Amino acid sequence: IAKEVAKLLEMKAQLGTDEGKHKFVLKTPKGTRDFGPKEMAIRERAFRAIISCFKRHGAEVIDTPVFELKETLTGKYGEDSKLIYDLKDQGGELLSLRYDLTVPFARYLAMNKITNIKRYHIAKVYRRDNPAMTRGRYREFYQCDFDIAGQFDPMIPDAECLKIVHEILSDLQLGDFVIKVNDRRILDGMFAVCGVPDSKFRTICSSVDKLDKVPWEEVRSEMVGEKGLSPEAADRIGEYVQLHGGLDLIEQLLQDPKLSQNKVAKEGLGDMKLLFEYLTLFGITGKISFDLSLARGLDYYTGVIFEAVLLQQENEHLEEPGSVGSVAGGGRYDGLVGMFDAKGRKVPCVGVSIGIERIFSILERRLEASEEKIRTTETQVLVASAQKKLLEERLRLISELWDAGIKAEMLYKKNPKLLNQLQYCEETGIPLVAIVGEQELKDGVVKLRIVATREEVNVRRESLVEEIRIRTSQC
Amino acid sequence: IAKEVAKLLEMKAQLGTDEGKHKFVLKTPKGTRDFGPKEMAIRERAFRAIISCFKRHGAEVIDTPVFELKETLTGKYGEDSKLIYDLKDQGGELLSLRYDLTVPFARYLAMNKITNIKRYHIAKVYRRDNPAMTRGRYREFYQCDFDIAGQFDPMIPDAECLKIVHEILSDLQLGDFVIKVNDRRILDGMFAVCGVPDSKFRTICSSVDKLDKVPWEEVRSEMVGEKGLSPEAADRIGEYVQLHGGLDLIEQLLQDPKLSQNKVAKEGLGDMKLLFEYLTLFGITGKISFDLSLARGLDYYTGVIFEAVLLQQENEHLEEPGSVGSVAGGGRYDGLVGMFDAKGRKVPCVGVSIGIERIFSILERRLEASEEKIRTTETQVLVASAQKKLLEERLRLISELWDAGIKAEMLYKKNPKLLNQLQYCEETGIPLVAIVGEQELKDGVVKLRIVATREEVNVRRESLVEEIRIRTSQC
Repeated sequence: IAKEVAKLLEMKAQLGTDEGKHKFVLKTPKGTRDFGPKEMAIRERAFRAIISCFKRHGAEVIDTPVFELKETLTGKYGEDSKLIYDLKDQGGELLSLRYDLTVPFARYLAMNKITNIKRYHIAKVYRRDNPAMTRGRYREFYQCDFDIAGQFDPMIPDAECLKIVHEILSDLQLGDFVIKVNDRRILDGMFAVCGVPDSKFRTICSSVDKLDKVPWEEVRSEMVGEKGLSPEAADRIGEYVQLHGGLDLIEQLLQDPKLSQNKVAKEGLGDMKLLFEYLTLFGITGKISFDLSLARGLDYYTGVIFEAVLLQQENEHLEEPGSVGSVAGGGRYDGLVGMFDAKGRKVPCVGVSIGIERIFSILERRLEASEEKIRTTETQVLVASAQKKLLEERLRLISELWDAGIKAEMLYKKNPKLLNQLQYCEETGIPLVAIVGEQELKDGVVKLRIVATREEVNVRRESLVEEIRIRTSQC
Repeated sequence: IAKEVAKLLEMKAQLGTDEGKHKFVLKTPKGTRDFGPKEMAIRERAFRAIISCFKRHGAEVIDTPVFELKETLTGKYGEDSKLIYDLKDQGGELLSLRYDLTVPFARYLAMNKITNIKRYHIAKVYRRDNPAMTRGRYREFYQCDFDIAGQFDPMIPDAECLKIVHEILSDLQLGDFVIKVNDRRILDGMFAVCGVPDSKFRTICSSVDKLDKVPWEEVRSEMVGEKGLSPEAADRIGEYVQLHGGLDLIEQLLQDPKLSQNKVAKEGLGDMKLLFEYLTLFGITGKISFDLSLARGLDYYTGVIFEAVLLQQENEHLEEPGSVGSVAGGGRYDGLVGMFDAKGRKVPCVGVSIGIERIFSILERRLEASEEKIRTTETQVLVASAQKKLLEERLRLISELWDAGIKAEMLYKKNPKLLNQLQYCEETGIPLVAIVGEQELKDGVVKLRIVATREEVNVRRESLVEEIRIRTSQC
């Protein structure tokens, strides 16, 4: 005891000398967070589902640097450009952190003169936005992008993007969802026939984009009051944007006396019809809604646009209704690559981005509620000893196991108590314990304990690896 | 033809109008690079080997943000701090890109009051260094870190770190290697007994660190000339740092009349002996060299340090001899976490960092030399048609395959030629083609073609999924 007390006093003395020296603010930057082992286990589960879907569709994978030349990002995001993180000018090039994966992808295609690729890219992007972390809105967040670039027959790649969203959301079992679809050409044609002047297309489009959050009356008064649209034009838009449906609605609009006279709207509607035919063959129209109110913010879309929304579950009582929302979105952007090409050569592209942070929040919340215990390691066996002075034997055995590809751990103590070793297995979910003792060493066996049942069997040392493999194959 | 020519002229006209508009510099920032599908395939191979080793040793995984508060990184890297990337002050917190994964790990431990964890972390770090990209030196590069934090019995976790380096380098088959080991306490003791004043320990240490690149005579003249060390002290150091060996050398130094009188050196040597005993049990001492010239740059090491070096292969004729070098390194840093704790509470840590970019360069160079064709997708089957007007049938079949978990692709054309479809398989390495034709549809079968042998068999539609699984299970 005296020795222990002396040790403690010495430790306290050490602490004392350092006390008060350190006045760090111990935090991660605003809008960011660490992922601990539990969060990582959830994150990897979601990634696995997404990556396996992307690979099922034959995608290659690429990666680009986290920062780009500042000028690469300039003029791509409209008003949102103010949210870009710039690096300090420390001499040399001016750099910015990437804002999405689409612009770096377009830069990559133009730089390498690639006219044909199907790729995915999973990486963090950065936006100096107002974070709302409980709702899964961060300043550093992952995007999982799948894009098809190349000149192809109409709507076949577009349909595949929607199939992918459908597969991923079904696979992740996030509850009921709907994928809203529209087309920039239908929107533009609609604005034209409603009497919106060309110069106001973009700003009226961004008013329409708010319809998923605010009622029509508010959007209308913004259009008329703030944006100077005539009340008649606004009312005509109001009639259109309340429409949503399927093939029937497309047929109806193709007969619409005004819309059918507009060239771009007609093109868009024709392609939308084709898209729905393909989606019917994929058997997924049940979750697709052609929705004239879907506008999407980004400047670079030129054709089909879409957005997947989770529907509020009847049995889920969420405190914040706002926490349910868009979990995937995308569309066609045929002009972006051309912006990077000296000769403006275009590479048509269509793609989808999965909003994984929102999905993480949902999965995390669900896991907490379920009280399911999630394992954060894959360890199959703990190498333990029942008596003292067996460290060397444990080291020898664990080394054999590692070399045979078995996932094994041991406590980093010379003489750990058996109880502590068993407790460690309970806490971390290790299913097996390989116990070495003097008798076992003499007999050339190892005692294998099954943690769940407390059953113990002696296994010949040379059969141990095989025995562990068999007993953990279903784990 | 006339129609095609008209189309081409229209396309040319489109190009013409945009010409000359875009004057972007199309490049990635200095010292960074894109990873295309081929590079990613190599990268993922290496990651797989490393991650499976980390998991075999029971490690959890964490992730931290790419940037930290600037003050978190301040005072951790000594002179190298000038290489840190800062973000521009756009209002709010001052931020810097992480320089390594060790300091964020220590911040994470202190912030969450974690005193006990075994984790790995694979992520990009950033250094405004002089890039030498052909030798695998970049400004943005991956580190693969494995660390054990906690108060444990001596040298058990340290030995495991060395076992991990041994496993990974063996597994990646990078050729012969040696892991040099030393201890900061042995170095400090050695400097003391050689007559180096305390204030010069650090700077003399960094001279010693150069011994792997420049001959002793140069290092000596730097010590005496630039750093003002007495010639006698330098010569005494010179005798020690030429020593390397195994247990024998440790025993010899434990008997060394001067070194054995120095308290820290003796402690270090005692632990080194223990380490070698454990490494003997692991059966890896053949590739370990206790090397008194190993110093390592970073300030925060307090005990064991190590570095793995690839040895020049006799059959390899490398143009740049400098391209072979350190591929992993690490050591014990018992004080770093305490720097973040308000009360200076220490958490002892030991860890290893795998220098994956160098390994990528080696694997890339080797792959190029071997002319091995590397697949960049995992697609099992191409859904094809032999006649026109079968797009709908292809869409229906591919959808069935995707829903059954088969990795399948099709060409995005309404009426692709069979030859083009087969060629696509040859180019991309897809092993199977599922061909639908009118006769097959009538008979309720699909023609399955094995690309390698050109063999074709009719498979009943309901057995197709199973047949594809069996035929690709060995891929």
